[in-house]
Amino acid sequence: MKPRPRRPDAPAQRGNTGFYRRFFMPSMHIELFEGRSPEKKRELVQALTEQTCKVLGCRPDAVHIILTEVRKDHWATGGVLWSDKS
Amino acid sequence: MKPRPRRPDAPAQRGNTGFYRRFFMPSMHIELFEGRSPEKKRELVQALTEQTCKVLGCRPDAVHIILTEVRKDHWATGGVLWSDKS
Amino acid sequence: MKPRPRRPDAPAQRGNTGFYRRFFMPSMHIELFEGRSPEKKRELVQALTEQTCKVLGCRPDAVHIILTEVRKDHWATGGVLWSDKS
Amino acid sequence: MKPRPRRPDAPAQRGNTGFYRRFFMPSMHIELFEGRSPEKKRELVQALTEQTCKVLGCRPDAVHIILTEVRKDHWATGGVLWSDKS
Amino acid sequence: MKPRPRRPDAPAQRGNTGFYRRFFMPSMHIELFEGRSPEKKRELVQALTEQTCKVLGCRPDAVHIILTEVRKDHWATGGVLWSDKS
Amino acid sequence: MKPRPRRPDAPAQRGNTGFYRRFFMPSMHIELFEGRSPEKKRELVQALTEQTCKVLGCRPDAVHIILTEVRKDHWATGGVLWSDKS
Repeated sequence: MKPRPRRPDAPAQRGNTGFYRRFFMPSMHIELFEGRSPEKKRELVQALTEQTCKVLGCRPDAVHIILTEVRKDHWATGGVLWSDKS
Repeated sequence: MKPRPRRPDAPAQRGNTGFYRRFFMPSMHIELFEGRSPEKKRELVQALTEQTCKVLGCRPDAVHIILTEVRKDHWATGGVLWSDKS
Repeated sequence: MKPRPRRPDAPAQRGNTGFYRRFFMPSMHIELFEGRSPEKKRELVQALTEQTCKVLGCRPDAVHIILTEVRKDHWATGGVLWSDKS
Repeated sequence: MKPRPRRPDAPAQRGNTGFYRRFFMPSMHIELFEGRSPEKKRELVQALTEQTCKVLGCRPDAVHIILTEVRKDHWATGGVLWSDKS
Repeated sequence: MKPRPRRPDAPAQRGNTGFYRRFFMPSMHIELFEGRSPEKKRELVQALTEQTCKVLGCRPDAVHIILTEVRKDHWATGGVLWSDKS
Repeated sequence: MKPRPRRPDAPAQRGNTGFYRRFFMPSMHIELFEGRSPEKKRELVQALTEQTCKVLGCRPDAVHIILTEVRKDHWATGGVLWSDKS
């Protein structure tokens, strides 16, 4: 009845359904410039999770996403910090 | 005319359009169990890029994704390697 | 009264048990030279998970560990690849 | 005369002692929700280092750990930010 | 006329020149203690980019660097946080 | 007598010399397409270490670099795997 991760070792190898589906766990780290609104972040993780599950056939709660905001003076392209580009 | 990355330092701060849109560059690292087909991976990066651009308003070629396949004997949950779960 | 992160969404405020305990999820990435035996890896993830739970008060299955084996010709200290040290 | 790492595999192959022991260097990155006390962090890195050395047979000062605190509005599971779970 | 990234799929496999050169894209993450001045960071990313291009033969704007400042109470060596060393 | 990291707290705050210099430890992770020769990698880590020490004023053996080779079918830009670009 409990839909939570309770049998990490259960026999559930039928195709990609059941147990494994729930435990197949893509983990994402996303780096982006700081400054995005909470709404955008919320929308982003939702959209990415949805797509991931659709493509890989896993349960949403198997998808973990960590956002890392990077300051513009900590990200460089072409040897120049983005804070210096303008 | 081509809206390509040619002026990483151009004055283009109007809203979130133009220059910045192109250079806003989310970078993603995705860890997943090994074993997914090339088609699934192809589909995954396409879908994630599409959603990211839709939500954040950036150009597709600003989105970088690196997939890392993790062996089941290198990923543990609950102190047990996935290769030992069965 | 408890100053700890206690309501990720659930009614699980008793001490550090229940829902949160299960979902508080430290995630570890460990890089080590390749060459360790499966037994050592197994032992390592078990020991680290155990200690983490003991210290942080979380459930074992909330702890995720990913091991990354690094080749000696891909790890440098002092500007010298470990494969070249000898 | 040169005080640089010049013998990472110098004659120290007896078991796992000597030089190599000192230089075998597991590196850990740990992501956890923000909010843990300095005491807990201190205790955590000590316990993890101890266990790692015990299992892998390396010297404590070869173990590097970096903690990354993740805000609840930057960590999502199931497509929902932890800050939104409640 | 401008040799900029405009054909990520163009036929440009001659040696390591032309297209590929521009798209070969090393990505660096550098963790360092907090406290370095903006000037030092600026100088660092410039120097590293320059060297990378010189060695790998890629265009500067193909090199991405992200700096991560780590607090001394979040970095441990030998099981002791650097903030506790003193 | 022992040349190992034994005084992480030694009084060495004069400028950036002495103990701290040795222990200030930038850590780098570099992702690049697979296919570079051992010579190039050797040259790269040497050049990057040298520059880092020059800019940050640290000892070479305080600089750790880990190279990660990424397969072209695991790296996507613009939603397209590099293995599919041609």
